[in-house]
Amino acid sequence: MSHPSNAPAKDVMKKLVALCKRRGFVYQSSEIYGGLKSAYDYGPLGVELKRNLMNEWWSDLVHRRENVVGIDASVIMHPEVWQASGHAAGFADPLVDCLISKERFRADKAPQPAIGAELPIQCADKGQAKTYQEAIAKRFGINLDREGTQLLGLRVADDGTVRARQDEQWSLPFRGYVSPLIGSPFLSEERQFNLMFRTALGAVDPMQDAAETLATLTAADDLATAVREHFPKQAAQADSALGKALASGDRARLMRALIEQVTGPSMVYLRPETAQAMFVQYKNVMDSLGLKPPFGIAQMGKSFRNEVTTEHFIFRSCEFEQMEMEFFCQPGSQKEWMSYWKDERMRWWRQYANNPNWFRYRKHDEDELAHYADDCYDVEFLYPWGWDELEGIASRTDHDLHAHEERSGVKLRYTDPEQSDPATGKAPWSYRPYVIEPAAGATRGVLVYLVDAFCEEQRTDAKGKTVTRTVLKLHPRLSPIKCAVLPLVQKDGMPEKAREVIDAFLAAGIPAKFDGKGSIGKRYAKHDEVGTPCAITVDGQSLEDGSVTLRDRDTTEQIRIPLAEAVARVRERLDAGQAS
Amino acid sequence: MSHPSNAPAKDVMKKLVALCKRRGFVYQSSEIYGGLKSAYDYGPLGVELKRNLMNEWWSDLVHRRENVVGIDASVIMHPEVWQASGHAAGFADPLVDCLISKERFRADKAPQPAIGAELPIQCADKGQAKTYQEAIAKRFGINLDREGTQLLGLRVADDGTVRARQDEQWSLPFRGYVSPLIGSPFLSEERQFNLMFRTALGAVDPMQDAAETLATLTAADDLATAVREHFPKQAAQADSALGKALASGDRARLMRALIEQVTGPSMVYLRPETAQAMFVQYKNVMDSLGLKPPFGIAQMGKSFRNEVTTEHFIFRSCEFEQMEMEFFCQPGSQKEWMSYWKDERMRWWRQYANNPNWFRYRKHDEDELAHYADDCYDVEFLYPWGWDELEGIASRTDHDLHAHEERSGVKLRYTDPEQSDPATGKAPWSYRPYVIEPAAGATRGVLVYLVDAFCEEQRTDAKGKTVTRTVLKLHPRLSPIKCAVLPLVQKDGMPEKAREVIDAFLAAGIPAKFDGKGSIGKRYAKHDEVGTPCAITVDGQSLEDGSVTLRDRDTTEQIRIPLAEAVARVRERLDAGQAS
Repeated sequence: MSHPSNAPAKDVMKKLVALCKRRGFVYQSSEIYGGLKSAYDYGPLGVELKRNLMNEWWSDLVHRRENVVGIDASVIMHPEVWQASGHAAGFADPLVDCLISKERFRADKAPQPAIGAELPIQCADKGQAKTYQEAIAKRFGINLDREGTQLLGLRVADDGTVRARQDEQWSLPFRGYVSPLIGSPFLSEERQFNLMFRTALGAVDPMQDAAETLATLTAADDLATAVREHFPKQAAQADSALGKALASGDRARLMRALIEQVTGPSMVYLRPETAQAMFVQYKNVMDSLGLKPPFGIAQMGKSFRNEVTTEHFIFRSCEFEQMEMEFFCQPGSQKEWMSYWKDERMRWWRQYANNPNWFRYRKHDEDELAHYADDCYDVEFLYPWGWDELEGIASRTDHDLHAHEERSGVKLRYTDPEQSDPATGKAPWSYRPYVIEPAAGATRGVLVYLVDAFCEEQRTDAKGKTVTRTVLKLHPRLSPIKCAVLPLVQKDGMPEKAREVIDAFLAAGIPAKFDGKGSIGKRYAKHDEVGTPCAITVDGQSLEDGSVTLRDRDTTEQIRIPLAEAVARVRERLDAGQAS
Repeated sequence: MSHPSNAPAKDVMKKLVALCKRRGFVYQSSEIYGGLKSAYDYGPLGVELKRNLMNEWWSDLVHRRENVVGIDASVIMHPEVWQASGHAAGFADPLVDCLISKERFRADKAPQPAIGAELPIQCADKGQAKTYQEAIAKRFGINLDREGTQLLGLRVADDGTVRARQDEQWSLPFRGYVSPLIGSPFLSEERQFNLMFRTALGAVDPMQDAAETLATLTAADDLATAVREHFPKQAAQADSALGKALASGDRARLMRALIEQVTGPSMVYLRPETAQAMFVQYKNVMDSLGLKPPFGIAQMGKSFRNEVTTEHFIFRSCEFEQMEMEFFCQPGSQKEWMSYWKDERMRWWRQYANNPNWFRYRKHDEDELAHYADDCYDVEFLYPWGWDELEGIASRTDHDLHAHEERSGVKLRYTDPEQSDPATGKAPWSYRPYVIEPAAGATRGVLVYLVDAFCEEQRTDAKGKTVTRTVLKLHPRLSPIKCAVLPLVQKDGMPEKAREVIDAFLAAGIPAKFDGKGSIGKRYAKHDEVGTPCAITVDGQSLEDGSVTLRDRDTTEQIRIPLAEAVARVRERLDAGQAS
């Protein structure tokens, strides 16, 4: 099952992106202004698909369960939340610059040539090859051979250095990776780049304050002395950012530390995950609802990460939606609950899929686990580029509650009067619950079901010609439009009759859409492409005998039914789920 | 009707805020860390209320209408969007500092004493009065009289200056307002403070770049010369920020301009409204769905404003949710559509209300209208502090499409082949649609219905004592829990029976909640407080004859019904709406 024979075609992404724009699922954000780095807007069809998916999750996790409740916290939380969670210090990617091409990239995602490998530098054209050849000679003292668009002669030696064929004496420490764009081993140091977006909260422009401070300090003859006078306390602390910058004697570093010193207190972060709010509000939720473990707190909504690499359409973007739940349970019961939620979540994902075998679990290896985690599984999906992440289900112990308890000084325990503390053998037992966290990507979920639903079928048309039918076989509960209501022609009272049908559907709470534009064949094709499971056509006969035709998206079969049965028949189709 | 006799009580807010926390509607954000400026998190009940309200809006605006579609755009849009819309330049509050108390406030909201008025300065205590008296004497050269906590002797003279009784020669220009906290006329210049949150997008820390630039430039002997050499183009432009800063000779201003010069290109904004996305994506939506005016594009979601004054619980906060629609219509038809949407929106708000007369329209005066607007109404609600804004319905002409067309260079027209251009008398007519915009506050909507629903009833209990019953008479479609299912006691098979009832409700798509904790009276009281319209109790008789009791929240009446009818009876109650 690791790679099913019916895997999605490699070119599906290109076709899907085009369909998404053409049919109003997903547009590039701010397109009329040239777009914004990997930001997307959901169009009229996309917003319904996303809402349907997220509502299904909410209904399954929150409404259908006695022991799970929802919350909706603010995106901007107190900055200490991210200190406690480790995001402020550690939620960072190691970034490196290629000193030749100036490309900036993530060190942990770069190509890693093996010991003994040649290191050809691949330029865009001959002119660039010449420029890079000269730059390398000037800066690193080695003349590489130029062959067309490549610079040759470097390799990874057995001693873990980069050596040159042209000069046996020359060498360079090998960093274990080269730049992705041109394969260069000439690299800057790694810098940690925090993925969280920062912004300033409050009625003061902190940059104005920073500018005023810098104006005063840099006017002095001796900057370091002026800084020490202005910030005596921080300057005296050898381990403060300002203290370190002063000690380093690096002027740029001192400027950076000064800006941070002044602006830091106003700075807040956009949440990089929805999860922390459940820990921070754990006590309020438990107290106001009188809950006792095991119970879960669920949240869905926007998160923001200043991703260095955005890729694969809506798969990885800087702004995205998540569906996360923290399930608080008694220490010792986490294995059992991990097993429960692992099964529940897989069941949930697969129930809407045409290809349930495109979903699988990947258990994290010991060395992949965070230090506090006791177990972790990824739900992976077989995207057109291969297996990749969709949801993570982690057994996080009491790590998060512990961290917030330490930092806030507020006890985040549950006291069970009926149980004995294992340490003392006496009741009550006051413990920090252990946590199982199923954390799913909602935006990724949208992409997953689009990929799962996308079909191209070869069919023979009325004239015997082979034609391709594009159809989105979305689960009816996910489909943006549940039922299209089509007057065969735009006259003879058919549109009026069709609107009566619409009213009956709306009254029944089923979002149906009137569509009167273009030939009936084109309208069927359009609704196949957007995944509308049912189409009802009002024709001449409808006006005579009150019957309509009902067309099924997946089979394309049409049957004639009494109009009075339309709502019931469509509801049946919606409830039945996938036809296949 | 301007102030109905049944107006909400002044102390309702305090009681509501307490109820919201106690029962899990709304908590202060990041409370364990001391909270964050006016940020709130929705608890398990609040998130359901908010979702219900927003889903009602979506259903009414988008699902039930043939000519309105939804979108869901990203929060971070291309910065040019906010240049075109005017938010980057104009979405600013005039801020002023009181030079004595250091209070920072909005000039346009400050008290405005009349000509001839006395200007007593009101201090917190006698110590402060002494300090302020000395500060004023030192800085402004006038000795005011101190009486208790007041400083006296200033007044607004007929010539529009501030004069002192103590010194006829002394005067100060009067700015038309004084500081709200102490009533001081000693004020800084007004500064424009932009309400949009800014953040940096991209894998580079722009502050690092700014620090590096400042380190180089301030190391030079002559800063201005170094700046001119480093930024020759911008420095040469007399009207650029850098050019102006250089000309001013103000070092702090120059630093600010330098920071902006380097960091500006990475800066993006969090949207201060959801509305602009509908203009920016107008063409994509129209083209992909084959729409023709009149049609609407609706969106709901988070917006962010760095408000100087946050107030009245969730009424005004920095992060909030909106429900907005842009309705694109043919020029000339805007009056008719304004009238239509004005009625529709009022009908919508009132249908969920116990007190429909707490909603009213306020037409904007000519001098309140934006220069491009042709008409504007506010839907106002009678909050406990008086009539205040809930929704704005504006006739915006083609102002927004025009602005985005100008800036982006993309034509944002609709070409109607069937109509003649009024200018030429010939078809087709290519026009920029006019826009009616009903822009509602979703977060405010939550507050409005909480206020509208909050009741305290005096009742006589079984012992003849007068007791107060607190009940949230929320419209059943808004209620977080539709039906509570209560086993009379937690034994004898009653909980099991109650869970069977729950399953029947969930299968019918009605979120019902099991509640087994505490005495039955306390559970009724709790569900009254959270607005649960129906409570079903499973008792001893239920196990014998399959009947249960059904209690109505508003009347508190209980009737016994067959269990099999429970779902239907509750559904009836939900569909019926308000009992009153």
